Amino acid sequence: MKALEEKILKEGTVLPGNILKVGSFLNHQMDVDFLMEMGREIADKFAGDGVTKILTVEASGIAIAVAAAAHMHVPAVFAKKNKTGNLSGGVYAANVHSYTHNRDYTVVVSKEYISKDDVVLLVDDFLANGAALEGLIEIVRQAGAKVIGASCAIEKGFQGGGDKLRAQGYKIESLAIVEEMSDDTLTFRA
Amino acid sequence: MKALEEKILKEGTVLPGNILKVGSFLNHQMDVDFLMEMGREIADKFAGDGVTKILTVEASGIAIAVAAAAHMHVPAVFAKKNKTGNLSGGVYAANVHSYTHNRDYTVVVSKEYISKDDVVLLVDDFLANGAALEGLIEIVRQAGAKVIGASCAIEKGFQGGGDKLRAQGYKIESLAIVEEMSDDTLTFRA
Repeated sequence: MKALEEKILKEGTVLPGNILKVGSFLNHQMDVDFLMEMGREIADKFAGDGVTKILTVEASGIAIAVAAAAHMHVPAVFAKKNKTGNLSGGVYAANVHSYTHNRDYTVVVSKEYISKDDVVLLVDDFLANGAALEGLIEIVRQAGAKVIGASCAIEKGFQGGGDKLRAQGYKIESLAIVEEMSDDTLTFRA
Repeated sequence: MKALEEKILKEGTVLPGNILKVGSFLNHQMDVDFLMEMGREIADKFAGDGVTKILTVEASGIAIAVAAAAHMHVPAVFAKKNKTGNLSGGVYAANVHSYTHNRDYTVVVSKEYISKDDVVLLVDDFLANGAALEGLIEIVRQAGAKVIGASCAIEKGFQGGGDKLRAQGYKIESLAIVEEMSDDTLTFRA
């Protein structure tokens, strides 16, 4: 998505530890008009794939999941990090390693909100090593439902998570793929 | 909003500890078409008030903040709970007591994303005792900006937070106000 690449170049900042900061429009402040355009792009990429539900993980995946769901007219579910008291009944749970924060956490989804008949599209703001998506795939597997693929706003191609999932047969459609980045250069996959 | 009251009656469950569970459509699974209708309702209530920015708090406020912002065509910002490594530079911070989880937490917003010229509308999924909104008001105060008011999907009128803020002069427009609830009854403010 050309407009997203331009926005990353204009507003993004590379921080130590391979962090691409896009808090001005994606995951702290949200440029919601632009977010809705990204949602439309995701909807277009998965039109005709029979998606019945979008699954993301809190917190920064919620906005883009809502934007995509608004155009696909399907419900969106966000996995919660660690279990809260409000989740009555059973949950599906998976362990995720966060490379950014160097710790493990658990993502949970109430069993009520994914059924075995669902065709699930995973949506998130970032795709780096793929750990978060793998956690969500495990949750969908536990529900006996099908993962059709994933769409993330920004994929860090050099971290390999997207290509690993593509090799497993998932349809992975990132809106922008950063192939290389450093303090002074940022290039996208052609 | 009549449709929201009906949805609460149909899908909501009252749990011990004054918890109203609406995870089927608002804050775990999200009925995004309905969420966008709620966003339109919020936009209508604050049309002409000069809102330049929406502020919410992660995680469950993000979806409805995005829905409102999509109709108001302004950016939305979500306050983060506790500071993460990705927030470079200074932040505005406030302490919030969570009655649901009986603990304190800090909400932070990067100084980059609220300026003194902003007219801020606070949006959240629930308004109970008002602690989260008071934290957000404190953040806006630190930025030298103006809070015009708040719109939450569901206000628990019996917990008093909304009326306290109304008495302070804020325009508080909840989409549904629960006046009383128990295992077998749930009544709305007329």
